[in-house]
Amino acid sequence: MFLHRAASQVAAPVSVNQPSMRRSTPESQQGPEPCNRAESGDRRMSAATQTCGRPLCCPANRTTGQRRSVGPCQHQWEHRRPARSARLPPSCATGQAGPSAAAHMASVAAAVSADAAALQELVEDAVVWASQHGLLVGAGLAEPSCATVHAPLALLPVPYPRETFLRAKAAALAFNAMIDAVAQDEEYLTTVLAAAAQEDLFTARLLQVFRETAAERHARREQEGVLAVLRSDYMLHAPTNSLLQVELNTIASSFGCLSTLVARMHAYLLGRLGASEAELAALPTHNAMDNIVDAMGAAVAEYCSAAGCSNGEAVMVMVVQPGERNAYDQQWLQTRLWERHGVCTLRRSLAQLVAEGELGPDGTLTVGGRRVALVYFRAGYTPDDYPGEAEWGARALVERCDAFKCPSVAYQLAGAKKIQQDLARPGVVERYAASSVDAQLLRSFFAGLWGLEDLAGSPETQAVVDDAIAHPERYVLKPQREGGGNNYYGNALRDKLAAARAAGGAGLGAYILMQRIQPPVNRSIMVRLGQAAEADTLSELGVYSTFVRRGGRVLLSAEAGTLVRTKAATSDEGGVASGYAVLDSPLLV
Amino acid sequence: MFLHRAASQVAAPVSVNQPSMRRSTPESQQGPEPCNRAESGDRRMSAATQTCGRPLCCPANRTTGQRRSVGPCQHQWEHRRPARSARLPPSCATGQAGPSAAAHMASVAAAVSADAAALQELVEDAVVWASQHGLLVGAGLAEPSCATVHAPLALLPVPYPRETFLRAKAAALAFNAMIDAVAQDEEYLTTVLAAAAQEDLFTARLLQVFRETAAERHARREQEGVLAVLRSDYMLHAPTNSLLQVELNTIASSFGCLSTLVARMHAYLLGRLGASEAELAALPTHNAMDNIVDAMGAAVAEYCSAAGCSNGEAVMVMVVQPGERNAYDQQWLQTRLWERHGVCTLRRSLAQLVAEGELGPDGTLTVGGRRVALVYFRAGYTPDDYPGEAEWGARALVERCDAFKCPSVAYQLAGAKKIQQDLARPGVVERYAASSVDAQLLRSFFAGLWGLEDLAGSPETQAVVDDAIAHPERYVLKPQREGGGNNYYGNALRDKLAAARAAGGAGLGAYILMQRIQPPVNRSIMVRLGQAAEADTLSELGVYSTFVRRGGRVLLSAEAGTLVRTKAATSDEGGVASGYAVLDSPLLV
Repeated sequence: MFLHRAASQVAAPVSVNQPSMRRSTPESQQGPEPCNRAESGDRRMSAATQTCGRPLCCPANRTTGQRRSVGPCQHQWEHRRPARSARLPPSCATGQAGPSAAAHMASVAAAVSADAAALQELVEDAVVWASQHGLLVGAGLAEPSCATVHAPLALLPVPYPRETFLRAKAAALAFNAMIDAVAQDEEYLTTVLAAAAQEDLFTARLLQVFRETAAERHARREQEGVLAVLRSDYMLHAPTNSLLQVELNTIASSFGCLSTLVARMHAYLLGRLGASEAELAALPTHNAMDNIVDAMGAAVAEYCSAAGCSNGEAVMVMVVQPGERNAYDQQWLQTRLWERHGVCTLRRSLAQLVAEGELGPDGTLTVGGRRVALVYFRAGYTPDDYPGEAEWGARALVERCDAFKCPSVAYQLAGAKKIQQDLARPGVVERYAASSVDAQLLRSFFAGLWGLEDLAGSPETQAVVDDAIAHPERYVLKPQREGGGNNYYGNALRDKLAAARAAGGAGLGAYILMQRIQPPVNRSIMVRLGQAAEADTLSELGVYSTFVRRGGRVLLSAEAGTLVRTKAATSDEGGVASGYAVLDSPLLV
Repeated sequence: MFLHRAASQVAAPVSVNQPSMRRSTPESQQGPEPCNRAESGDRRMSAATQTCGRPLCCPANRTTGQRRSVGPCQHQWEHRRPARSARLPPSCATGQAGPSAAAHMASVAAAVSADAAALQELVEDAVVWASQHGLLVGAGLAEPSCATVHAPLALLPVPYPRETFLRAKAAALAFNAMIDAVAQDEEYLTTVLAAAAQEDLFTARLLQVFRETAAERHARREQEGVLAVLRSDYMLHAPTNSLLQVELNTIASSFGCLSTLVARMHAYLLGRLGASEAELAALPTHNAMDNIVDAMGAAVAEYCSAAGCSNGEAVMVMVVQPGERNAYDQQWLQTRLWERHGVCTLRRSLAQLVAEGELGPDGTLTVGGRRVALVYFRAGYTPDDYPGEAEWGARALVERCDAFKCPSVAYQLAGAKKIQQDLARPGVVERYAASSVDAQLLRSFFAGLWGLEDLAGSPETQAVVDDAIAHPERYVLKPQREGGGNNYYGNALRDKLAAARAAGGAGLGAYILMQRIQPPVNRSIMVRLGQAAEADTLSELGVYSTFVRRGGRVLLSAEAGTLVRTKAATSDEGGVASGYAVLDSPLLV
């Protein structure tokens, strides 16, 4: 907390460029959280001068201390009204500093935050390091179109409870095994998603592809090539001090590479602030980038082994959205896949894939004459990616071929919100988990989840809908959509549910109702386009896992790294500038 | 040569993404250089479609086969009329391929060059790799000012004769010793530069600082802290197949870091084209970045050792031009100096330095309370950097302090063109070289150099000026300026010399006349802002060397890496777009 907290009570400013001063801030000077934090934060930021040639402080990003009503989220995030002191470490909150590395680093960071010149230097260090090390996104300019800027990032890592973090990582293999079992149960997928497909054309169309390609799939079942790159997303639920799953991504799990770089950047910046080796040990290292790439490499090697070709002959096709050229998170995978496994990547949109791809009579897929060992989707998860029949044709083409798929349609369906909700019903996850111990572990992360297809007939569903209408702040209403921006919160949720109830419960088959997670609030300095802005923030933890299976043989199942995204705790009403997320990493406390 | 050559005679296109095809181009298909190369090159480039969202081919950069008159150069380069076949490797030129790795890579590269799709993929690979690995320059945009783009680069390394390359590297220590001896001979510097100072205010002002700080310097002679980061620049002289020195940089030798990255990028790209380990061995590895940083670290460690402080307590001040924020070549030094030696860097303009710097009675310099162990100049080499007395005050402040200097005023003066010319006079370099063997080696790189201060009185000078007026294409007229753009060529040179001769030889004391180097011409694909353009090019080799001395103790003298810059062989008349240089690396043949 303190890392992101206003530090007006810390007297001695610490120089960024003077590691020898790193213990010069007496820990006893750390006081309890000031009640006027937002105001003092504003004052400090106004005093900041320049970074990247522009003011440090973006007024639009300041927190005013006033909470506005919570509106629909443009990102895939849980919102809540902040409960700011929830996660304050005891050693800091009491003013009695313990020996914790995180507590010491927090005090240093707080001092930097209070010193405009030191803050400016640290922001510049962050921007330069990010640009030097490929922690980039496209600048989105027409000219030059190849211009890049650093990815939006948290200046310093966010304190995160160590035990909870480790527990989430430890659950990765259980999720791998469970979702793989779900994906192999075609009857379960089609049955559970039938109601959603009635109201959601996208789900219906995916099921149609699934049905139309069944013959080829069943004929190849013993040789099915599966690569899963999952990311299970969690938020801390402050009222019960538990970690709850937001969702499990089975397609296009992103940010593995940039997240790897952010963790390295935070280690660098804490080093600049004078962190000792022991203190840096509170930053968990991970290498999601290479772990994901190694899973891809394993899939290609397995394909080539069976096909009698070399790694260099077969390629990975990365399915991308048209025109996307600056996706550095994706391109790092390409670079590392080449460097570590000698495998080339072809970036193709769905439309390009159907135009260039050729399916041989033996199920081999070639693109431009190159044999495809693996198709990796970074597109195809939203209806927008399928503007016409050509794109659906590409999807079916991939389903029919003998390449490894990441993901298959089955895996994509297994990640549907409706499946997430159904798995939470009594006895369901227990059918798919590898063991009862696994099932218990998985269930411990499940938030309250309710299906709405039986609103007319189920007293239980009616009761929860009644409660949601009475207390909309306790729930989120989610349609079958990926990519965020489609959820209902607050009054919109209440109105939607009330209208559906009045209409006899119709039209909600594609929705699930989910308990609203109430994460603790931190104080963060977010850096975007070279500008720093301090704000109250919420953080979401993602845990990557990789899985490779050929027919009945599991070749790889591994936890593969983590992601922390942090966003302003305020609503999105102020627009993107006040609502954006930044890449972050955890400092374990 | 073939690497950069039009490849219209190579029949089989080689796929970038198919390493297994790397030997699919029969070497016997390589024919002699076609006489219509420029035209076929144009055709090929026109067929190229898109990279980075824009056409591969920049028409402004095409060579037309027509040579225009050679005008003043905006860069620090020697121009000549191209003699294009001069450096064609015999094994390629005859069509009888030898076993050379370079020859094979050349044929592959030529094939890529002829295949628009393969070329586009390779350009994208280059742009992505460069952006991922910090091979960047600022995009120069007002908004966002922190946006970056890849540095201008040659897509593939330029063939370079191995023996010549190794000879240039082997001369580094001899240049180190020689220039250090020159810099310590104050009487020599002031005497030789007296005539230039009469006509050149900048030289005069540097000499004034030198004079005014003599007392402090002499008092500290036994403890003088010297860091030299030199770069000796060379071009091949085709008519004699020799390597001639263009100049020796003693201040702000740039591109060490980006050059390190370009060599790595070329290794990556050749790997993508299917180069074997043996073939990649033709790319000399170097690490100018870390070698320069290690010399800085050694200087700081020596300072701190004597001063009784730790590396973490003392800082390096990097003197930069005001407003320069995106100098990634500089910032890599900062990042690596921190990572390898725990030394912080303060970036300061001369004006900031004089405002913030405090000189203690014992000669210690502090900036913002931080003790300065080393002042490293990446500015201060041009009159533009000294708009007022404040900046000159900063220069004197540094001269007076006890920090290591890179460079001192003496070192800067030792790099003056007038000194370069004087050293070439019979017997002079022999006085400063460490041995007669060294002197012979150094002299072997000297081009013809003539001073003009005695035009009125010396028949020899009159004879060379007469020859230059008759054959201006054989000479370059250079004033005492760094940074390029001030040289006289061709008709401008003839007119300037004729006018001076008519005026009785007055006004030329600050100029030197230099033999015009006639380098061989290559064919290169230059990539800038994501766009590729093929052109006839000239290349310049730079060899970095580092040197650390404390009083009479030499702590370090080392060759530190190389730089190759390549530019269009055509004149600058078409503007920056047709005349820019790109970063390159050598492929040894």
